[in-house]
Amino acid sequence: AEASQGHITVVLLGATGDLAKKYLWQGLFQLYMDQVSSGHSFTFHGAALTALEPGQRLMFDVLKKLTCPPDESPDRCAVLKDQFLKLSQYHQLKTAENYTVLNREIETLLRQEGLKEAGRIFYFSVPPFAYTEIARHINSSCRPPPGAWLRVVLEKPFGHDLESAQQLAAELTGFFREEEMYRVDHYLGKQAVAHILPFRDQNRQFLDPIWNRHHVERVEIVLKETVDAKGRTSFYEQYGVIRDVLQNHLTEALMFLTMELPANVSRAEEVLQCKLQAFQSLRGLEKNSAVLGQYQAYASQVQEELQKAQDYISTTPTFAGVLIHNDNLRWEGVPFLLTSGKALDERVGYVRVLFKNRAYCTQSETLRDAGHSQCKAKQIIFYIGHGILNTPAVLVSRNLFRPVMPEGSWREAVGQSDLHIFGQPLSDYYVYSPVKERDAYSVLISNIYHGRKDFFITTENLLASWGFWTPLLDSISHQPLRLYPGGVENQHLLDFEMVSGEVAFTLGEPVEQRLMPDDYRTVQSKFRQSPLVSAWSEDLISQLASDIEKAASRTVARSGQFHLALSGGSSPVVLFQRLTRHHYAFPWKHTHIWLVDERCVPLTDTESNFFSLHNHLLQSVRVPYFNVHPMPVHLHQRLCVEEDRGTELYAKEIMALVANASFDLVLLGVGTDGHTASLFPRSENGLEGAQTVVLTESPVKPHQRMSLSLPLINRARQVFVLVLGKGKHDITTLLSRVGHEPRKWPISGVSPSSGQLVWYVDYEALLG
Amino acid sequence: AEASQGHITVVLLGATGDLAKKYLWQGLFQLYMDQVSSGHSFTFHGAALTALEPGQRLMFDVLKKLTCPPDESPDRCAVLKDQFLKLSQYHQLKTAENYTVLNREIETLLRQEGLKEAGRIFYFSVPPFAYTEIARHINSSCRPPPGAWLRVVLEKPFGHDLESAQQLAAELTGFFREEEMYRVDHYLGKQAVAHILPFRDQNRQFLDPIWNRHHVERVEIVLKETVDAKGRTSFYEQYGVIRDVLQNHLTEALMFLTMELPANVSRAEEVLQCKLQAFQSLRGLEKNSAVLGQYQAYASQVQEELQKAQDYISTTPTFAGVLIHNDNLRWEGVPFLLTSGKALDERVGYVRVLFKNRAYCTQSETLRDAGHSQCKAKQIIFYIGHGILNTPAVLVSRNLFRPVMPEGSWREAVGQSDLHIFGQPLSDYYVYSPVKERDAYSVLISNIYHGRKDFFITTENLLASWGFWTPLLDSISHQPLRLYPGGVENQHLLDFEMVSGEVAFTLGEPVEQRLMPDDYRTVQSKFRQSPLVSAWSEDLISQLASDIEKAASRTVARSGQFHLALSGGSSPVVLFQRLTRHHYAFPWKHTHIWLVDERCVPLTDTESNFFSLHNHLLQSVRVPYFNVHPMPVHLHQRLCVEEDRGTELYAKEIMALVANASFDLVLLGVGTDGHTASLFPRSENGLEGAQTVVLTESPVKPHQRMSLSLPLINRARQVFVLVLGKGKHDITTLLSRVGHEPRKWPISGVSPSSGQLVWYVDYEALLG
Repeated sequence: AEASQGHITVVLLGATGDLAKKYLWQGLFQLYMDQVSSGHSFTFHGAALTALEPGQRLMFDVLKKLTCPPDESPDRCAVLKDQFLKLSQYHQLKTAENYTVLNREIETLLRQEGLKEAGRIFYFSVPPFAYTEIARHINSSCRPPPGAWLRVVLEKPFGHDLESAQQLAAELTGFFREEEMYRVDHYLGKQAVAHILPFRDQNRQFLDPIWNRHHVERVEIVLKETVDAKGRTSFYEQYGVIRDVLQNHLTEALMFLTMELPANVSRAEEVLQCKLQAFQSLRGLEKNSAVLGQYQAYASQVQEELQKAQDYISTTPTFAGVLIHNDNLRWEGVPFLLTSGKALDERVGYVRVLFKNRAYCTQSETLRDAGHSQCKAKQIIFYIGHGILNTPAVLVSRNLFRPVMPEGSWREAVGQSDLHIFGQPLSDYYVYSPVKERDAYSVLISNIYHGRKDFFITTENLLASWGFWTPLLDSISHQPLRLYPGGVENQHLLDFEMVSGEVAFTLGEPVEQRLMPDDYRTVQSKFRQSPLVSAWSEDLISQLASDIEKAASRTVARSGQFHLALSGGSSPVVLFQRLTRHHYAFPWKHTHIWLVDERCVPLTDTESNFFSLHNHLLQSVRVPYFNVHPMPVHLHQRLCVEEDRGTELYAKEIMALVANASFDLVLLGVGTDGHTASLFPRSENGLEGAQTVVLTESPVKPHQRMSLSLPLINRARQVFVLVLGKGKHDITTLLSRVGHEPRKWPISGVSPSSGQLVWYVDYEALLG
Repeated sequence: AEASQGHITVVLLGATGDLAKKYLWQGLFQLYMDQVSSGHSFTFHGAALTALEPGQRLMFDVLKKLTCPPDESPDRCAVLKDQFLKLSQYHQLKTAENYTVLNREIETLLRQEGLKEAGRIFYFSVPPFAYTEIARHINSSCRPPPGAWLRVVLEKPFGHDLESAQQLAAELTGFFREEEMYRVDHYLGKQAVAHILPFRDQNRQFLDPIWNRHHVERVEIVLKETVDAKGRTSFYEQYGVIRDVLQNHLTEALMFLTMELPANVSRAEEVLQCKLQAFQSLRGLEKNSAVLGQYQAYASQVQEELQKAQDYISTTPTFAGVLIHNDNLRWEGVPFLLTSGKALDERVGYVRVLFKNRAYCTQSETLRDAGHSQCKAKQIIFYIGHGILNTPAVLVSRNLFRPVMPEGSWREAVGQSDLHIFGQPLSDYYVYSPVKERDAYSVLISNIYHGRKDFFITTENLLASWGFWTPLLDSISHQPLRLYPGGVENQHLLDFEMVSGEVAFTLGEPVEQRLMPDDYRTVQSKFRQSPLVSAWSEDLISQLASDIEKAASRTVARSGQFHLALSGGSSPVVLFQRLTRHHYAFPWKHTHIWLVDERCVPLTDTESNFFSLHNHLLQSVRVPYFNVHPMPVHLHQRLCVEEDRGTELYAKEIMALVANASFDLVLLGVGTDGHTASLFPRSENGLEGAQTVVLTESPVKPHQRMSLSLPLINRARQVFVLVLGKGKHDITTLLSRVGHEPRKWPISGVSPSSGQLVWYVDYEALLG
């Protein structure tokens, strides 16, 4: 009867390693205890490179120390442990032949006992460099026969950036099918983390109305450690806190919070699908999305352990605070703060959802604090462990709701009313903790056995996560780190704040490296007889954005509307960001947006200037639909065909809406060949003549363009030319010398007849 | 020398009334003390209906009690008071002749003393019904000669709704020029309120980056009173707390907070202009923007004082909490809570700006509370007076910034460190209070003298405020009020919360009036052989919104996009509100919006269906520009001309983007004549035939329409028909009986060939 469900073979590779000793054997024993009456039979095979005899001894030393949970009777425990030891054996797995032998032994055993094979689990508790070879051997020698499943369990790290992760994934995919791979993130086995989705599911009635940007004030996902990296710097120096903790553990918790809830949370496929979708709405990280620190002793630990020179400087962060945004309607604007670090003042992990306080309490403060006033903070906390509570827990503010919790596995905790946590006494919360505290690995091993793929990291999930984190990792690789003494002495040194979608340490650098003040100032001067504004690009953009806002406000005050013509290209993107994030009083409602030029592609093509403008500006501000004027490059289902008269149409629209066809402001760029708008050197159209909107040819793809003509541009009241970057230095130098030669350099023909021209050139373009 | 600046005549009408006794004479005396060396000479004329002799006695009884500020020497005080009494006289002003006599006396005096006239102030401290007559007399008999100014000072109430205010304003405008009228809102003389704008101006460097929706969490503008309306119910019963306090005092404070700051805050014109503009971005108030209460004793006080019957029920609120939103980029989403009431637990007035907490404190709670941690609340409070501080004050959290305050008039207060205010110890704030506490009237009288019109309510400002409040006042006139016992016994009874842009009391009604449970349920049934969903309109709309979201999510999951065709008219507006405020997971990004029909007017015309759709839906959600498909009724600068082939263009666009020209969902309405879309009875186009988009004629203006045809509508996968209101009862009844007769009732021709039709009819339409 025991064998009717078939036999399961578990092979633990790295059977004598640290992780195996500490968690995995115990987890396998727990699996055995739980499933001994399930109808499955089991054998457990430890494997390592060590030769048979010493390996055996090492392994059984570990097995002898296995323990039963406290609620197991000592008699039954002794019996079960004895059985488990009998079902376990050690193998040396080094050569291809070793794998063939192992396979033969498994088959023989099954045949002898007359057992049907249900499946095989191979648990890779080995360094990642060994993955490929082991995978090859298993694939060629150890696959179970058809009808039985194969599950290979992999431990991180899974690469150190998108490229390496892709490479590793590609290698593994050569050996295993996606459904055969179980990538472990042990955080998904932590009881509080594993309960996030079930909690959201079981409390839908309460959460549905409030689980969104209108109600959630902020979310903190935190893993603080007191230990440092001593003794592990050879690993740590390559990874750092972001790769070690944020990219995996904290990101997974983030996904559980933000993903749309599938109709059925117990269906792994649906869960994985929703989780993957949630990655798509993460806003890209930039350098300033993170604050980074390093504890002071780290440098000397690295020097010592890795035999580095005294002047070796490590750029590996041991502390990070990262601000993440979701650009969807549910979460837009809600800050998600991911924080982790070593050598901090306490060991604690939690996921904290703080709700906006939407109550107004009419009674005076002195009277209101009796009872669970609606004016107290409202929060939900998934307390992962350690810290002041020292147990996994789920906390829900009493003025929020009494949560539905699964009775068998979570129970209401008896309050230590004097504890104060997350700004409130513990008595302000409903507190639940697990009936049985379970180690993450034992949870995960059970999930592997049950085939619950939603507790593991699929390839797509892994690559989505690396895809999200890699740009940040690249951009901060030479970022200065804040040094912190460690422990309680850190004081406020690592506190950080969100400012306009970015983060920064609250306290200034104790000894701040400053460029000369001159470098920071915006320089006002002349260029080609017109006013020149020059600065480092960040300051320049902020000056330009202010100037545009000023022009807009002034013009709207005078005439009720502001006609702004914008160029395509990449330079304006930073400008658009600046405008959307810092200029709240910009009169967008009264602004008309025109295009200076457009590529002959559909507006929904990513190459389209309008598409880029839409993505980077229009999505974030409130320009009324009627005030947006894309160029009609796509008429009658075809692109820029003369007979469709798109240019005429646009010219008429301008004539109808813009007084005297004189734009209030035209923003131009300059190409390295001196082109501006889509007016290229020696263009047949647009450099002169009566036509205001023209079709032109670009030397680069897509060749066909639509553009405002020079004469139309020169009717504008103001023309701002933005030039950014070293790549523009040569043309900038050239332009400073040449005269009015629009056929050679179309930009030199920009010269508003009665308006003002201003050059915004950054130091890199100006000085090279 | 004293007279070189000219003479000023002050006439106080209602010289023996309560306000005059309590504040105005003292304010005039203060003006005299302040300006005695200014170069102006003064005379003060008290006036009332009382005959000369008793009036004189009454008035001088008041004048004798005038006091000097504590810093004035007793000697100088006695001299000044003596002079002031000599310069004051009483007049009976009753008949037209009395005014002529007064004018003659002023002229005679000036002539005798050889004084040049600088101006005349007429202070109306009289009931508003007397305004018109007095104004007529002043205008005809008491105007100063050319070159001297006239200032008439008016006390509220200025009407009780928009219409009455307009009427009163129109009457006054017949007698006085705008610049001659000084309407008093004595709140603008309160030192803390008067300092809001100067504070914003002087602290621009700190406030500029944070004075917006990205940083401000909420704003509370509060005036709580402990007194009740006893003895004043004859006034109060007509006005109530909203007209008495919110429409004027709290609204003015709100405007000072939200208005854009003019370049120069000391220029009254600029200030008034910006303030007026701020009214334009206030979102309209609805019934559920307010919670209303009445203290229990009020009813019997009214019955007694106004001799009402025992069963008289007063619907006058004595408590109100109102949630106000600003729909501009600076303030969008920030809740402004205005609260006032009588018989509350404390007397206090304040304006509190609470900032979002944007800090993450890495140290544990136990360590962080030393010092001014960035994790503590950040707020700015303009403390108007009374309450725990019992003085006007400006409070700024120490972790925010040290404010710039005008040294002469405000000084840092010495902290009573044991006080706890707005959730924090007083020591967490920089606290400033006025060097000299000044009564509001003395501040205002000084401002009248200086011609500072920005401290007064212009006609435009007044009408803007009434225009804003009147719809709420109308909609709540029969609203049930929460009864409260008064004082500390109110407990949490008046606490309220914001929910989806509305407010509601936190605690349920102690004895809640409930309709039968049946009335609340949504009824599912059949109508014209198709499914019928019926409920009270609010529930119906919420069901319909859910059903649309479900359809959208399902369709996007299947095909990646959702093609939704929407009708014009007023019924969908509530649906759009519901969708924008409750359906955060709606896949707008993948939704295409089409129009079912359109009026032949420009899209920017308020009559346009698209314009309404834009206002009520598109502005609030993120439908990409490319997915919005207005009907091309406006081509080549003309409307719905056949030759422009707008219908063909739209038909082609549908063909190009919508698979099989089969919309995923079409939302229709029904007219009382049985029309749907813009397909009217006996229409020549659109009821049958191959044309998918047609031009039609409406019996009502604007006559020309563009519409989807019945055959195209019937290709849809789903058609929902929404019918709301008593006015639709007859057509609903009729439709329940007739068959397929589209020429008579176009709606009866809606019958999707392979799709589903669902009727959403509210109880009022269904049951009459």
